Amino acid sequence: MYTAMALERRLKGDPNVQVTLVSKENYLVFQPMLPEVISGSIGILDTIAPIRRLCPKTNLTTRTVENIDLKNRTVTVSSGFRPRPYHLEYDHLVIALGNVTSFACQSGLEEHALPFKYLGDALVLRNHIIHALEEADIEDDAQFRQALLTFVVAGGGFSGVEAVAEINDFVRSAARSFRKLQVSDIRVILLHAGPLILPELPESLARFAQERLQRRGIEVRLNTRLAGATADYALLSNGERIPAKTVVATVPSAANPMVAALPCKKERGRIVVTDTLEVPDYPGVWALGDCAAVPDVTTGQSCPPTAQHAIRQGRRCGENIVAALRGEPAKPFVFKALGKMGALGHHSAVAEILGVKLSGYLAWVVWRGIYLMKLPGFDRKIRVASDWILDLLLKPDIVQLKTGAATGVGREHFEADEVIFNQGNRGDRLYIIVDGEVEMVREEPGRGQVVLARLGAGECFGEMALVNDAPRMAQARSHTAVNVLTVDRAAFGALFANLPPLRGLFQQLIEQRQRAGTAAAAPAAGPVDPAP
Amino acid sequence: MYTAMALERRLKGDPNVQVTLVSKENYLVFQPMLPEVISGSIGILDTIAPIRRLCPKTNLTTRTVENIDLKNRTVTVSSGFRPRPYHLEYDHLVIALGNVTSFACQSGLEEHALPFKYLGDALVLRNHIIHALEEADIEDDAQFRQALLTFVVAGGGFSGVEAVAEINDFVRSAARSFRKLQVSDIRVILLHAGPLILPELPESLARFAQERLQRRGIEVRLNTRLAGATADYALLSNGERIPAKTVVATVPSAANPMVAALPCKKERGRIVVTDTLEVPDYPGVWALGDCAAVPDVTTGQSCPPTAQHAIRQGRRCGENIVAALRGEPAKPFVFKALGKMGALGHHSAVAEILGVKLSGYLAWVVWRGIYLMKLPGFDRKIRVASDWILDLLLKPDIVQLKTGAATGVGREHFEADEVIFNQGNRGDRLYIIVDGEVEMVREEPGRGQVVLARLGAGECFGEMALVNDAPRMAQARSHTAVNVLTVDRAAFGALFANLPPLRGLFQQLIEQRQRAGTAAAAPAAGPVDPAP
Repeated sequence: MYTAMALERRLKGDPNVQVTLVSKENYLVFQPMLPEVISGSIGILDTIAPIRRLCPKTNLTTRTVENIDLKNRTVTVSSGFRPRPYHLEYDHLVIALGNVTSFACQSGLEEHALPFKYLGDALVLRNHIIHALEEADIEDDAQFRQALLTFVVAGGGFSGVEAVAEINDFVRSAARSFRKLQVSDIRVILLHAGPLILPELPESLARFAQERLQRRGIEVRLNTRLAGATADYALLSNGERIPAKTVVATVPSAANPMVAALPCKKERGRIVVTDTLEVPDYPGVWALGDCAAVPDVTTGQSCPPTAQHAIRQGRRCGENIVAALRGEPAKPFVFKALGKMGALGHHSAVAEILGVKLSGYLAWVVWRGIYLMKLPGFDRKIRVASDWILDLLLKPDIVQLKTGAATGVGREHFEADEVIFNQGNRGDRLYIIVDGEVEMVREEPGRGQVVLARLGAGECFGEMALVNDAPRMAQARSHTAVNVLTVDRAAFGALFANLPPLRGLFQQLIEQRQRAGTAAAAPAAGPVDPAP
Repeated sequence: MYTAMALERRLKGDPNVQVTLVSKENYLVFQPMLPEVISGSIGILDTIAPIRRLCPKTNLTTRTVENIDLKNRTVTVSSGFRPRPYHLEYDHLVIALGNVTSFACQSGLEEHALPFKYLGDALVLRNHIIHALEEADIEDDAQFRQALLTFVVAGGGFSGVEAVAEINDFVRSAARSFRKLQVSDIRVILLHAGPLILPELPESLARFAQERLQRRGIEVRLNTRLAGATADYALLSNGERIPAKTVVATVPSAANPMVAALPCKKERGRIVVTDTLEVPDYPGVWALGDCAAVPDVTTGQSCPPTAQHAIRQGRRCGENIVAALRGEPAKPFVFKALGKMGALGHHSAVAEILGVKLSGYLAWVVWRGIYLMKLPGFDRKIRVASDWILDLLLKPDIVQLKTGAATGVGREHFEADEVIFNQGNRGDRLYIIVDGEVEMVREEPGRGQVVLARLGAGECFGEMALVNDAPRMAQARSHTAVNVLTVDRAAFGALFANLPPLRGLFQQLIEQRQRAGTAAAAPAAGPVDPAP
């Protein structure tokens, strides 16, 4: 967007140049203010800037990039209302695809940890937190209530710290509106892999931040990573399990698959560019931001992946493209970082600006002042300023805005020896095993637990309660760590009712299992040995 | 909620009485302001009131009611994070379940018309409208662009009129931020079954409103109902088809299935109650609002289903329950409607208050004043007032906030002789026929269109492009009106990859079809006769 803005400014409406911007969303998220969306102190739409308003002369294509063909100089984008691909041709191409969140290789995080990067994530997280408080308020089981009231955030960098600070402020203040919740029961835990949070900052500031968070009741667990998650707990690198229904992971980011697929030279997943932001060997192709390895003349290394660098790279790229169109020489990207800031919630922050260290209230005022100035668009500045004023006067919002229905088909992860569902539970979904082993166990009067079956990859379970609309006939327990696919009641019912071959398949399966179940339950057969 | 508030006020913290409120959401939507959420002139969360703040002494259970057992005096609610039902016992039960939206018996409305009743509906509608504008801006096909720019609203009562007025204001103002859209290309159409909109109002006011809407460019189609919809057009009662990608239906409302299942006496789907709001033959059971037929002493009929009646019934019910607890006599519900108001957008409204007729700007000022006063909660009043002030100064928001991903399994409706997908299209979903017939047609060089197969209920199509990740090999066309279930690419891929019996099923099917396709394409076989 900043490249398009620079192009508009320099081209001054030149009719021979068409600028097209492809973006998945029709807005830009102003990341520094995203944590405030969790607590609702900023309105949901106020932290994002509509691209059309900021680049009025640019053709905005609100679609997802699906393919970049550097040889034929075309970009393919996703289809809209009609299932037709859409191709764009270019003379100059700017690749600014950023990173993507990726939980690859960490078991259960994809399924059970909440990411925190996009606006949608902030909304989902906010609703999840309120949902957990709602459920805790009516939960009789003390252990389960504690898991509902435990919030784990992984990653002690800027985004993790800002997220945990906002979550902590929000849950402690929101809990007061719930009749049966004790603020003292709330646990907010920050996991950090190193010995001190905020490693990007000077030690004195990082220590200030860490103490400030601890004083507000956040448990900071140092030298500890998040190793995995299930629906019921966070699994730490030291093997400890923290029962928690809310696990937030801000750490993981991986190269965009579109970038990974490009034939050009890369350095640790980032596109190698010259100091003028050009991609060598591909004339007319430029790259910048988190997806590019831009040489930093001040350090001799690549630029760090920060917004202040990316924004200035974007502008420089626009200027260099105009220079190229006019046959003028390109200028190198030169920029020295101005500083670093992190909000700690509750009118406190830490900042290092042009070498000056600030902390506490003053840093918070500077934080708000600088970011309000940087927020693109005059109307957003007004809206955010008015939000901040109202937030001083009014209590935080505890409305749970449910976004969309369940997805029909989902994924879940279980570690070994966990209960997937209990005998007598309501049958709310079908499970299909992707990998791992699951045991079906039934409590038989006078005979204790009988293992009815052990199932593996490609087998499914839980269909009986759905087909017969009855409670679960047996307990399902993970024998090893298990990844499953789930199909919810509504989706299963629709498919089962309308696709006879599928119905046949499941009816056959159920008959088989009922025969096997009867055999296992018959006294003559004796209890099945649970060992293989 | 108003009953709970009245109970709290009268009981003054009596420790012997527990009040529990079961609500699907933890907030109350203030309906009159909902249309303004479409245009964004009110913040998304500002038109809703958090129940916990308004009833601090009530136990709020944020779950869905699943069963009411009047005999055993228990209410069963849905499960939360765990698949366990939750039972509540009562001494007094207040049934205030309202109506539900229902598109039953109108073909295609369930699948393709957008309802407008809940907060979620307003958000979905807002995003759909912005999505349509985004797509229109990059669409080359003039006919398809026109369908994207056509907005049909069905129902000329208060909610339809307020919705169409807000949609019209919003799209015309938002379109100016899009580079290639002409405001003159936009069509906003209101369908109304009677000869004049707003039949609840005196004729002079209704005529004023109708002319005002028309002057703003809304086409008002009188004596016309919405008979159905597909993904591509609105089907009118006179058989006309209006190509439109946005069809909003505000009309349909049906008895809540929970209410329908109750054994007590009903009158046109509503629970019969005495003038003290008690359900005859069921002591301790009360009913009110849209789901109850409350005698109206001023007209001799049942009370109309309006908020002003429901709110006062709620309060009276709370007072009568306290009277019953104290052995005092119950008082009858007596209320004469104060008047009616409808906003027409753009600083205009119509109102009839205590017999006085108002229209235009003055009515709009009265509208805003009265509803701001009635909006529950002081902080909401402040927020909405500040939204309204900002709205006078700033341009409307055009940010498209995508809520949740696609649902995996969905439903679609096609009328006879429609193209479901074209040869060469991208394979984005599997179709399962619920009812109706579909023809698969392939264009053969030199032989024209060859019908490969005719499929009926329980059969599926479109699997080949998904399994082989290739473009559609043939066109799918509805032979009769068809209802289908769709499974999207991601859900199909996950199920297909992990459930071997399903994979076997589809591979078998594809082999059969490929054999049949080759046979149909062989010159010796000749073209298949498309007639039965």
